[in-house]
Amino acid sequence: MIKVHYLENSQAIRIVWLLEELGLDYEIKLYKRDKTTKLAPEDFKKLHPFGTSPLVEMDGKVIAETNAIIDYILDRQSQQPLRPEKNSESYEKYNFWFHASQASLMPMLFTSFLFHKVTTSVPFFLKPILETVSKKIHTIILSPRTDRILFLLNQDLGKGPWLCGEELSAADIVLGYSLKVAEARVGLSNFANCRKFIENMEKREAYQRALERVGGFSTNL
Amino acid sequence: MIKVHYLENSQAIRIVWLLEELGLDYEIKLYKRDKTTKLAPEDFKKLHPFGTSPLVEMDGKVIAETNAIIDYILDRQSQQPLRPEKNSESYEKYNFWFHASQASLMPMLFTSFLFHKVTTSVPFFLKPILETVSKKIHTIILSPRTDRILFLLNQDLGKGPWLCGEELSAADIVLGYSLKVAEARVGLSNFANCRKFIENMEKREAYQRALERVGGFSTNL
Repeated sequence: MIKVHYLENSQAIRIVWLLEELGLDYEIKLYKRDKTTKLAPEDFKKLHPFGTSPLVEMDGKVIAETNAIIDYILDRQSQQPLRPEKNSESYEKYNFWFHASQASLMPMLFTSFLFHKVTTSVPFFLKPILETVSKKIHTIILSPRTDRILFLLNQDLGKGPWLCGEELSAADIVLGYSLKVAEARVGLSNFANCRKFIENMEKREAYQRALERVGGFSTNL
Repeated sequence: MIKVHYLENSQAIRIVWLLEELGLDYEIKLYKRDKTTKLAPEDFKKLHPFGTSPLVEMDGKVIAETNAIIDYILDRQSQQPLRPEKNSESYEKYNFWFHASQASLMPMLFTSFLFHKVTTSVPFFLKPILETVSKKIHTIILSPRTDRILFLLNQDLGKGPWLCGEELSAADIVLGYSLKVAEARVGLSNFANCRKFIENMEKREAYQRALERVGGFSTNL
């Protein structure tokens, strides 16, 4: 039995969605975030030296790192529709976004989130300074990079409902969380196909079942 | 012929190292960073909507995203020693660090770097405020996460010179750049095996040839 150690409102939603798409049996242990710091509680951090969510218990071990978990699960399915055939054009697209969502888009959003947290949490007389600094960092580095990624994504999502066209893949499952965060952090009003992707995801039954299992999901940390 | 569009002092060093390890023919087009902003020059950004380094021209197209490029190159080698057999224990370790170096370690170091740049570039009367904010972010979020990753890495690197033991893999090639940045940003004095890894990397002939091809490498941006 697969056990998902699920930190609420975290990227772990991807793993639950994946398991629902694959129709696999699994159980969930839910962990609430610390009310003040919004970080994972101590009992969660003790599960694995990494201390990040998601963590999955499977085959007698605890596995960390979102994309490594997804590969681990997919590698163990004799038949699965979520990873295109190697060397196909779909695979190229798949592999690019599978990596890029996590290693290029998410870091921009994470840093933007941290600057947002900082500017909203300092005493009021420091806010203007922090806002100026944050704005500068966004103008020079974060916004141009994020926009370039979303621009390409929006272009690719113009060719079909999912990254590889008509068929959902695990790259879409990775992307889904990233786009929910992007919507909350930077908005998607200039990226209609990205917005449409979120709608498609939220209409999907497996995603809805995943939400039900974890008691809903919010990017509003 | 493979063409590496190489932005100086960037993660692209990994691709050059990889190509040297594989003994493949390739050419390099070198791009200097903007002297003031340290960002990529405009002609580099025009090569691909992503605008990030590395970019590789191959099979008539420009490919972006470090790990996607590495997978693309490895998938096209009939025999290559840099990716362990699927389902082996080595593969598990490989896959975990292949993803974790890029998607977990690098984002912490990138954000830490940005806070460092901000605190050193503001007018002197703002420095104390920014230093306090940066210190708080480091204490609460960045340092604990970075330390946990380096702790596990240090443990895994205690079992052999490379992540999967005696044999170098592409996960080591991804890690190499991350550890050079970690050394510059947060120091590795508590992580002797990580430090030793860098020494092993720098002794490696293929890495030395890579450095020669690109005219040296520095994390000091």
